[in-house]
Amino acid sequence: MRIALICGGGILPKNVAQALLKKQSEFAVIRLAGEADTDLELPQSIPLTTVGWGQIGRFFRFLEDQKCSHVLAVGGVTRRPDFSSLKLDFGGIKVLPEAIATVIGGDDKVLSNVAAVFEKRGYQVIGVLEAAPEMSCPQGLVTRNAPADNAAADIELATRAAHAAGSLDMGQGAVAADNRVIAMEGPEGTREMLRRVATIRQQKRARWKSGQGVLVKRTKPGQDLRFDVPVIGPDTVRQIKDAGLAGIVVEAGRVLLLERDELLRVAEQESVFIQGIVFHPSAGQS
Amino acid sequence: MRIALICGGGILPKNVAQALLKKQSEFAVIRLAGEADTDLELPQSIPLTTVGWGQIGRFFRFLEDQKCSHVLAVGGVTRRPDFSSLKLDFGGIKVLPEAIATVIGGDDKVLSNVAAVFEKRGYQVIGVLEAAPEMSCPQGLVTRNAPADNAAADIELATRAAHAAGSLDMGQGAVAADNRVIAMEGPEGTREMLRRVATIRQQKRARWKSGQGVLVKRTKPGQDLRFDVPVIGPDTVRQIKDAGLAGIVVEAGRVLLLERDELLRVAEQESVFIQGIVFHPSAGQS
Repeated sequence: MRIALICGGGILPKNVAQALLKKQSEFAVIRLAGEADTDLELPQSIPLTTVGWGQIGRFFRFLEDQKCSHVLAVGGVTRRPDFSSLKLDFGGIKVLPEAIATVIGGDDKVLSNVAAVFEKRGYQVIGVLEAAPEMSCPQGLVTRNAPADNAAADIELATRAAHAAGSLDMGQGAVAADNRVIAMEGPEGTREMLRRVATIRQQKRARWKSGQGVLVKRTKPGQDLRFDVPVIGPDTVRQIKDAGLAGIVVEAGRVLLLERDELLRVAEQESVFIQGIVFHPSAGQS
Repeated sequence: MRIALICGGGILPKNVAQALLKKQSEFAVIRLAGEADTDLELPQSIPLTTVGWGQIGRFFRFLEDQKCSHVLAVGGVTRRPDFSSLKLDFGGIKVLPEAIATVIGGDDKVLSNVAAVFEKRGYQVIGVLEAAPEMSCPQGLVTRNAPADNAAADIELATRAAHAAGSLDMGQGAVAADNRVIAMEGPEGTREMLRRVATIRQQKRARWKSGQGVLVKRTKPGQDLRFDVPVIGPDTVRQIKDAGLAGIVVEAGRVLLLERDELLRVAEQESVFIQGIVFHPSAGQS
């Protein structure tokens, strides 16, 4: 198996590239122009190219030249091409109708459409959890900080709320503090939800002692984890502290820990706990 | 029955006072100093007093003098007394321990505690829905604007989400657009939730055509409607328009229409529909 690592924005592509390097996976890298802005810090031996929107022919030629069998796409894609000004290479012209159909769908459709485009050409699409499962949060406590005895009720409640958010296909996370659900995540994402929680506490719309309450983050039922896997990182931990919460509970094996060393360092520094739990498929904890 | 109308902040107290006046209910008014800042526009014939925190003796003396049998508390209370600087009148000293217990509870407890304080003294606590049920949204369309045929799915989805928010005791509302739940209301309230929805749309974190999607607002299971009844008003309608949504569905008979004439005028002007629906106790529509 030889992986084509397609890199969008954010720190995740670098984390994944380094994980593949460490475990000596065979891979080649395609950076998406305008999205992948982080230096991946890879040795010269790893083949690397950068493609822009429209260079679809070049894109697939690279995959062929590099004899890739698998495709792994990571990182965010925030820009959409302006089709009126799009310059297509020769390969691009051939797949244009397909590409347009892919891009103009809603976000969820884009993902499954992209997968179909690759699969039709004989590539197998895999996710980070397959390629580098060691990047996910293991079961159990990963910090020296542990939840207080009275955190169990908040963990249970936030777990139920996160499950409800997932069942409604709205989002992957929820926050509970002092036996009350404070927020459920929608399209705004975890970062904006945690900002909201901090504001709710500052404005005393809900009250809880500092260092009480938890964020629970888990996958949605039926979520395609090949493209969209939940993550937490050092900034998440800082936001937990700012919001006056105690810690983070994530679905073990299915949520990635970004910048793992830095994440754990910040967690110890800020007295935030991080715990991996295996959830029942329905709602509660196992 | 003679009602003591206790007025906190916002426009609701004025609306209720005018409704009681119109139906010739017997009532006297107590304005809470620092909270009730709106002119209630009542004739001189309606007895009116203003009491501050700590004037608990005066408060109950007014109720006795006015021979009130029922207590109706409306409007927001945002300030909490600073007990160290609180000046109590003679009656206040007698009920101080009780008053402290009432105020230091969480929001939900405050409400039931306040009710108990009145009931112990022989007053019956009623809500707006009992005193002026005509202020609530009736079943059916109240605007000339009607939901488009394809709005049914969003209404159903937002209804389910609002029910989930209520079941988790988190909030009373939810928004769905283009078959996706966009937000569920928590302690931040409807106004902040609708701001969030507008931002999500502006930032293209979720996409829907202007004039698609709905807000559903309903009571929480077990909610004490005597103190905390859901409302929508002209500002809600303006926010619906700003967020690119089509309209508002509320639980018929259990959600108040604030500033009714202005509300309906703005709704027609902004092409926003408002509909009252009787929900099943579980989740769906009847």
